[in-house]
Amino acid sequence: MLAVIFDGTLKLVHDYPVPELRPGEAIIRPHLTGVCNTDIEITRGYMGFRGVLGHEFVGTVVACHDETWVGRRVVGEINAACLNCPTCLRGNPTHCPNRTTLGIDRRDGVMAERFSLPISCLHPVPESVSDEAAVFSEPLAAALEIVDQSHIRPTERVAVVGDGKLGAMIVQTLRLTGCDLTLVGRHPERWELYTKQGITCQHSQDVQSAAGSFDVVVDCTGNPKGLATARQLVRPRGRLILKSTFEAASQINLTMLVIDEIQLIGSRCGPFAPALRLLERGLIATAPLISAEYPLRDGLQAFAAAHGQMKVLLRHPD
Amino acid sequence: MLAVIFDGTLKLVHDYPVPELRPGEAIIRPHLTGVCNTDIEITRGYMGFRGVLGHEFVGTVVACHDETWVGRRVVGEINAACLNCPTCLRGNPTHCPNRTTLGIDRRDGVMAERFSLPISCLHPVPESVSDEAAVFSEPLAAALEIVDQSHIRPTERVAVVGDGKLGAMIVQTLRLTGCDLTLVGRHPERWELYTKQGITCQHSQDVQSAAGSFDVVVDCTGNPKGLATARQLVRPRGRLILKSTFEAASQINLTMLVIDEIQLIGSRCGPFAPALRLLERGLIATAPLISAEYPLRDGLQAFAAAHGQMKVLLRHPD
Repeated sequence: MLAVIFDGTLKLVHDYPVPELRPGEAIIRPHLTGVCNTDIEITRGYMGFRGVLGHEFVGTVVACHDETWVGRRVVGEINAACLNCPTCLRGNPTHCPNRTTLGIDRRDGVMAERFSLPISCLHPVPESVSDEAAVFSEPLAAALEIVDQSHIRPTERVAVVGDGKLGAMIVQTLRLTGCDLTLVGRHPERWELYTKQGITCQHSQDVQSAAGSFDVVVDCTGNPKGLATARQLVRPRGRLILKSTFEAASQINLTMLVIDEIQLIGSRCGPFAPALRLLERGLIATAPLISAEYPLRDGLQAFAAAHGQMKVLLRHPD
Repeated sequence: MLAVIFDGTLKLVHDYPVPELRPGEAIIRPHLTGVCNTDIEITRGYMGFRGVLGHEFVGTVVACHDETWVGRRVVGEINAACLNCPTCLRGNPTHCPNRTTLGIDRRDGVMAERFSLPISCLHPVPESVSDEAAVFSEPLAAALEIVDQSHIRPTERVAVVGDGKLGAMIVQTLRLTGCDLTLVGRHPERWELYTKQGITCQHSQDVQSAAGSFDVVVDCTGNPKGLATARQLVRPRGRLILKSTFEAASQINLTMLVIDEIQLIGSRCGPFAPALRLLERGLIATAPLISAEYPLRDGLQAFAAAHGQMKVLLRHPD
């Protein structure tokens, strides 16, 4: 089958083996898949991954031992957990030490004609949510992990540093809390949507005067410079939420974190059910975030175009 | 007056100027003062401090415009805040951007015959608490900052990495929560007290098998190796509480913090009132922690002896 893979080099292949149906899993035919910054990081060596790329999808179940799933339109969580270990039984399957991760860690991803995922990862998509919106479920869930981990009060002053793909999901979920919200970025051409949504937007060059004034700061820039900006903005005893994963180890002045009693909160994958509820309620804009769409067969062009863009989608053959 | 100072070199001087009484402040004659690792760090350049060293004390107010304070035995908070700025008015005076800090930042410390501190920093010592116990108020308050910042559940598994002076206060406060508590250190000769108190003690060389098994890990080692051990011990979604301040910037793998969704909590000075209550209730052992006592005039010997020791005290002249 057709697949976009990384084997040390990013490639489009035509003869990738079709996945076999395993107990407890479903075979899915993706309709749309999304290119995430993590995919780009993987092509630079992140996680040492080899195989089919991609983890953002909406698709249809085409085979499953539990036939009630067949034909359903689904999105899916990316961590395939064992559901048996102490970590899973404690309610933390996304941290299962035995997990594989879709298109990221020892599990082929979604940028192919078919892929496989445990049923326990699947979420049916409500009829009113279009494919073009549902394909944002995974990054939207990751954004919701912030409010699932930390109580963001409507009276707090919050900054999101990073006006990229993940930042777009994060500001849109945080604005729903009622908090005083500022997006800090370097791409004013992207801000019209957020300004209309009542979010203050500021260029990262212009925020020095706001140093130490935010209760909560989210870093989703993916680069050490963004992290430094985020660190400057948070007040003593404030929370600094890290959404960025870096291939390189990053330096942070830990003594300053102690002196200012900052809480640093690592944040990764999040809950899908509320993500689908927000999409169903029409509270998250997704259409303006789509920069381009390519057919799967032009996957390499899609990757080349995705750098520095908002969401690039791949449309898969029926 | 006699004073132990740091002016680029650690010195005992006999002619240091006696402090003048300022409005809102009190002049204090210390009875006992303690050598803290921060004092030792300062003699290595930390904070760029110049002046009288020391911030742990118990003493008597000898002069104050408010005469009700004169003659009272007191301990005191080390951050002299403005009490007027937004940070202070928000209830965070220990983070006041205008603060000076006793023996640490632009305010002469306690290792002299007299020193000055705002009345707002003072706490009268209950009669039943001896000088030898009261002198531990400051590090005990710093230990209590942990339970003031973070809810440590009695059902949680907690490790304290570092069996030094601050670790001694931290394990003794955390044991009161009822949590499953392990002290990880490199000085088995210090552990008898803790073992008697029902605290498990383990050598840092022997904890590899416990990697990822603690809900909460406190680092109070003051060195990067200790921080690395602490990081290994905390489970995914656990809390890593930083009590160490380092002169050097420290490296931590932030991507691993994001992937494991660790909360990193910087923690510094803490509340004195509960520290005095715990001392009054006899719940904290202090006598076994005193390694040595020197007269103030032997302050240089005290500093030389304090390296790698538990608490070294200075007894001041009447």
